[in-house]
This record gives sequence, structure tokens and C-alpha cells, in this order.
Amino acid sequence: MGVREYALHAKEAAIICGTLDDDTKNRAINAICDALIAQSEKIENANALDIELADKDGLAPALRSRLGFYGKKLTDTVEGARALAGLPDPCNRIIFQRDLADGLTLTKKSCGIGVIGVIFESRPDALVQIAMLCIKSGNAAILKGGKEAHATNTALAEIITEAGIEAGLPDGFLTLLTSREEINELLSCDDCVDLLIPRGSGAFVKYIMDNTRIPVMGHADGVCHIYVDGSADMKKATDIVVDSKTQYPAACNSVETLLVDATAAQTFLPEVTKALRDKGVTLVGCPRTCAVIDCEQATEEDWSTEYVGLKLSVRIVDSVYEAVRHINKYGSGHTDCIVTQDNAVADFFINNVDSAGVYKNCSTRFADGYRYGFGAEVGISTGKLHARGPVGIEGLVSYRYLLEGDGDIVADFASGKRKFIHQGEV
Amino acid sequence: MGVREYALHAKEAAIICGTLDDDTKNRAINAICDALIAQSEKIENANALDIELADKDGLAPALRSRLGFYGKKLTDTVEGARALAGLPDPCNRIIFQRDLADGLTLTKKSCGIGVIGVIFESRPDALVQIAMLCIKSGNAAILKGGKEAHATNTALAEIITEAGIEAGLPDGFLTLLTSREEINELLSCDDCVDLLIPRGSGAFVKYIMDNTRIPVMGHADGVCHIYVDGSADMKKATDIVVDSKTQYPAACNSVETLLVDATAAQTFLPEVTKALRDKGVTLVGCPRTCAVIDCEQATEEDWSTEYVGLKLSVRIVDSVYEAVRHINKYGSGHTDCIVTQDNAVADFFINNVDSAGVYKNCSTRFADGYRYGFGAEVGISTGKLHARGPVGIEGLVSYRYLLEGDGDIVADFASGKRKFIHQGEV
Repeated sequence: MGVREYALHAKEAAIICGTLDDDTKNRAINAICDALIAQSEKIENANALDIELADKDGLAPALRSRLGFYGKKLTDTVEGARALAGLPDPCNRIIFQRDLADGLTLTKKSCGIGVIGVIFESRPDALVQIAMLCIKSGNAAILKGGKEAHATNTALAEIITEAGIEAGLPDGFLTLLTSREEINELLSCDDCVDLLIPRGSGAFVKYIMDNTRIPVMGHADGVCHIYVDGSADMKKATDIVVDSKTQYPAACNSVETLLVDATAAQTFLPEVTKALRDKGVTLVGCPRTCAVIDCEQATEEDWSTEYVGLKLSVRIVDSVYEAVRHINKYGSGHTDCIVTQDNAVADFFINNVDSAGVYKNCSTRFADGYRYGFGAEVGISTGKLHARGPVGIEGLVSYRYLLEGDGDIVADFASGKRKFIHQGEV
Repeated sequence: MGVREYALHAKEAAIICGTLDDDTKNRAINAICDALIAQSEKIENANALDIELADKDGLAPALRSRLGFYGKKLTDTVEGARALAGLPDPCNRIIFQRDLADGLTLTKKSCGIGVIGVIFESRPDALVQIAMLCIKSGNAAILKGGKEAHATNTALAEIITEAGIEAGLPDGFLTLLTSREEINELLSCDDCVDLLIPRGSGAFVKYIMDNTRIPVMGHADGVCHIYVDGSADMKKATDIVVDSKTQYPAACNSVETLLVDATAAQTFLPEVTKALRDKGVTLVGCPRTCAVIDCEQATEEDWSTEYVGLKLSVRIVDSVYEAVRHINKYGSGHTDCIVTQDNAVADFFINNVDSAGVYKNCSTRFADGYRYGFGAEVGISTGKLHARGPVGIEGLVSYRYLLEGDGDIVADFASGKRKFIHQGEV
């Protein structure tokens, strides 16, 4: 079958997935988890093959480090996925119900979205997680993993598909695409794929957005800021900046630009610079910053760069207004933080920064579905529509309107014979 | 200024719009309504100019009929808009608040989306309605009306802009684009326009979707179905079909295809055909239909055509399964209805039809924001992301995550020194 046939098949499966009750979905999740554990040797053997090839080919270290899927990593992933079975059903939730008129009842009810296409690199754990999230949310999944994890992904998809169908999921609930060429075919399936979630570099996400009519959920870049106000507790500010930059520098929620109020620059900048350099961070600064600390000058490009590493750009600003203006101009709308003891300044910052996450006196690294308590994370969205910020399983559901009457027609309301009442829970 | 400068200006205005309290927004709405009434002569004079030109140029009747904006139409529109001031603030609503850990509080709060671009034909009332919806929802609006309403739209935008700024809205809260060429410039402003709402033909909406990276909300087509099951009350079924087709045939929620169960065809088809023909409806049918009633044969294209007029395609099916399959294949996911007295058949239909509205025993013409009790309607979405079906003012808001701490860093949680508690309202 070609990608289009797979997608059409997935669309049929998605409708059945959407009608499954929560017990069936939970049973399937547990059965799949059992099968993954029972067949862990098959998975580990496949993974060993991928790793061997990666080492021979000299795979990029970032990808290589995410490729391993055995032992505790495997069992942790499976047990994390199993936890989904314990969550309430995100589908079939009545959002509201109201009588439009006597005997004419409108019900807004949550439901799966349909067919979710997810394109990801390396990380076989992502395959397990996404497949299970889609099962729980009543969707069908089409997954395209990186070729570096080909053997592992194939083994995982085989086990999940077999155990899932055995447990009552429809044939087609999971499809694994394996070649890069298939991505472009997938992008053209806008009549049967409802949502694309690309997980990869900013350039990759933009490529996807530019080449499909299918809605895309994802973040192109994470250019996060911390603004240290003159009233900030300088010790806390230093801790927050160091944590935000160094706790896991490859993450999209790590900080890229530090904005320092001019009134705090002379005392704070030397202190934070020392702490950052102790952790191996390279700094670039605006001309005023370079006059306070010894560092290279930042280019215009630096202000909108996601370093994905131990580098930080620093700028001195004259007010919270200037800080907010900088963030709204150069930021990516991901997560931005103010460190301050002044509530009025904090309120201005919080009201005026146009980002998915706006923080006060804490690390930008908290921007994460698990830390927010969502149980599982679909991804982080810097778009403002549908889902914004860390996206939990609710990002994988939509809703429908069900209207039930007994022969009701609009002409009776247009003529004034009947009247709308709009009563009931909103 | 070019479109890009206008859009950047609107982006700055949008941030201010997002920070306005509800009193200010309501005061502005009322002040604008007062100004529109006070200056109705200016609007009516401009509208007379547009109408004169339209008649001279022989404007298409559908557009011509929507162009008039004077007298009761004007006052009704203004009073409808004024009602928005009485609605609760859709922004600044706390969706949930929870403690991630001791002293680290996460708040999910609704907010405006930012800059909304709306492109519409004719209908000056749409300009008033959309401008007011955007004010209430804390957004800035960029509007492009049809050239046939150029004078009316210009007069309206002048009055609204002046009264709005006078009442405290920021300069740039409303921008009117007047030339067709400006649409393409607007489509390229994906860094400063957050949402596009095209109101027009399906081809026009598709053109917009294909030529921008900005998220688009709108419905490409409304191909609605009614399936009359063998158990249906035939009198009610006839009333529902006639209402759905003829009550306002140009609307997207009018029915285009009637599916009739084979067991009901011999009795129901002649009856409904007579009722429809009495109202001037032309029918085309599948071969089996043509054997029961005298009509032309439908082509494959008919099944996915939105007639926007008094025409209906009819097909005989052998079961609810076949009806559902037809709808999911040819429908546009707008609104589809079953007429039946059999609850099991109804449940199958409701669970398996993948549309924004799934109805039982009532007219498809109920699919409308006002009839649903939303107060105002932004449009109807056949997409499944963000907003689906009739979209009220809630379709114009997004949300943000605010996290407030006191020097909290992720390293303390990673090391096990602190633990997440995730307590509080979900």
C-alpha cells in the first residue's frame, strides 16, 4: 500500500477508535505494555542493531544519545505509558448540555481528532508514548520515526499493533512509515490526516508547515528570556538563570537571552557571569554589557537564536518596558520569565509579554507537561490556536455538537411560532 | 503605510487590547454603538453610493442583496453588537490553578489571540460585528471587505476607529484594508497576524489556506446530509428535509444530499419529492432513486457539491452503515442528521459520523451560533482543531500559563531535594 492508502485506512480506524469505551482503551494499553515487557528481548536486539549501525555511521551525538532503548529506559517508558490507563477518558466528556428549545437538546461532547501524524527523530520511546496517547485519546496514529531507529521502531510497531488488535483495537490504529520519501506523501493527505505533530528542529517544523494544508502543532523555536529587574533578589536571580541555562541546555525551554535592568547590571552581571562560566557557559553581550563584563559582542542574529547549548546572549535594558519590547520582538512566544520583588513591575511584565508561558521568579525549565502535572506530554506548542504551551492529552481531543429533537424545524422559530430558550448548564 | 506596517502596528495594539479590563472594553463597545447611531446618516449616504455603483455595474444578486445597510438593518446590527457589552469577559478567566510544589503556583488563564485578520465579501454588518467581537475578546482586527462595499466600510471603520480610540482603545485596534492586492501581503504576515478568518466561497477559503502560514479558521464547504431511516416518522422526516433545504438555501447548513433507507424509499420518496417540488426544489438521484421518482441521474460530482440553491441529490442506501460511509466519504464534516425512531440505529449514526454537528430528528439549519445560544457567531468551522462547528466569541480567545515562584529551580526537583505535588483545582 502507498501512504495514501494507509492514511485512508487509518481514517476508517480512527472512527472506530473514537467510539471505543474507556475500558476497552485501558485494556488495550495494558495489554500492549505487557507485550512490550514480554518481548523486550526482541526490542533490545533490534535496538542493538540500530546502535551498531549508528556507531559505524558516526551518527550525530545528540541523536545517538537518544537512540538507546533497553533496560531501565525501556521499562520506564512502558510503565509511564501504562499510567495513561489510569487517567480519566478524555473523550465522551460532556462539555455542556443545554435545551435550545423545549425538546431540542444540544450536547457539546469531547471526541478524538481523527488521524494524527507524528514525525520524530531518534527516540524510540517517543513512538511508544505517542502510540499510547493516541489510543487513550481515541485517535489513529501514523508515525514516521528517524531512519537511525528503523529496526527498533519496526519491532515496537509490530508488537504494539499485534497486541492492540488482539485487545480490540481496529486494524489501522497504528501505522509506521519507514522511508523519508513517505513524509511528502503524508503531507498531501489533507483529506484524511487531521493533525501533524512534527518533533524536530525549527527548520524541519517550518518545512512541514510550508508544505501541507494539514494543521500542524509544534514549536518552531524556543527562544526563552529572563529579565532581571532592579528589585530582584540577586542570589535567586543567579540560581534561576543558571538553572534555566544549564540544567538541560538542549531543551527548548532553556533560556537563550538574559535581559538585565541597568540599575542591577553593575552588581548582578559579574556575579551571574561567574556562576555561568563555572558551568561552562559562553556569553555574548550588547555593547553596554561588554563594558561591564568581558565578553564578545552579540550580533543582531544572536537575539533570535536558539543556541541549543551552553551559550547565552545578554542585554542591558533601561526598563521593564524595554525588556517586554525586546521579548515580543525577538522571542518565540515559548516561555519568558521576570525576576523581581516589585509586584507592579511583575504585573506589567506578565500582562504584556505575549508568550505561552510567562513566569515570575522561577526557572524557565518548568515549562513541561510532566512538571505541569499533565501526566503525559504531546509536545510544546508556540502557536496560539487549539493548544498552547505544554500540551497534554487534551491537545489530542476535539469536540462535536450533538443535537437531538423530535421533528424540530427552523421555520417554526423564524415565523415566531416557537422561541429559543437556551436553558441549562453552559 | 504598507500592509506589513499596519500589521506590525496592529500587533502592538493587540498586546494593549489584551490587557484592557472588561469595563473599558464594554465602555468602548457602547461608545462605538452610540457613534454608529449618531452618525447613521453618514453611513447611509456611503451605502447609497455603493448601491448606486452596484446597480450600475450589475453586481451579482447574492452580493447585491447583502449590500444594503440602512434603517432597521443598521440599527439591528448595532444593537446586536451592543449586546456583547453584556457578556462576561472571555479574557482573564482562570481555567485552572494548581500548586506544582510548595510556593510554585501555575495558573492557566484565557486571553486574546492577538491580531485577527478577517476577509469578507459585501455585508457591511459583518464589519461591525467582527470589529466588536474582536474588541470584547481583547484582539486587534485587520479587516478586508469587498470592494462593492468600499464606501460603506470606509465610513464604518472611520466611525468605529474614532469612537474606539476616544473611549480608550489603542491606536491600531482596527485596520481596514481596501484593495484586493493587500490580501496577498496580509497572507505573508505570519509573524504578526495570528489568525485568519476568510468568509466567502469554498474556493476562496482554499486559496487562503494554500497561500499562508497563518492558521485559518473557516469552512471550505457545507455539504450536509440527512439520512432517513426505515423507522423514521415520515411526516417529521418530510418537514425536516423541506426545512433543511428550503428555509434558507444559500446557507452552508442547508442540506445537499438526502439518503433514504431502501425500506422507506417507496413510501417516503414520492411524498418528500412532492413537498420539495412545491417549494421549487430540483432533484437528482442515484439510479435506484430514479426508478422510484422521476428525476435526472446524479453524477459522481453531485455527491460532494454544495449547491447553494434549490437543488438536492438523493440516494437510496441499504443500511445506516452505508449512509455513514457515504457521509464520511463525501461530506464536509459540517452538519449531518438522521431521522429515525430507532435508538440503536441513531446511536450508531451519532457515534460514527465524523462531523462537527451530528443531529437526530431536527433540521440541519439549527447549526448556527445564535441558535446554539452563543450570543454572537464568528463563523462556522469544519476544521477539528481549536474551534469546531459554530464558533462563538470563545473561538477568539487562547490561553497562557502563568507560573509564580520564589526562586524555584528545576535542579532541586531533578536531584530529589524537592518534589512536585500538583495540588489544587484541575
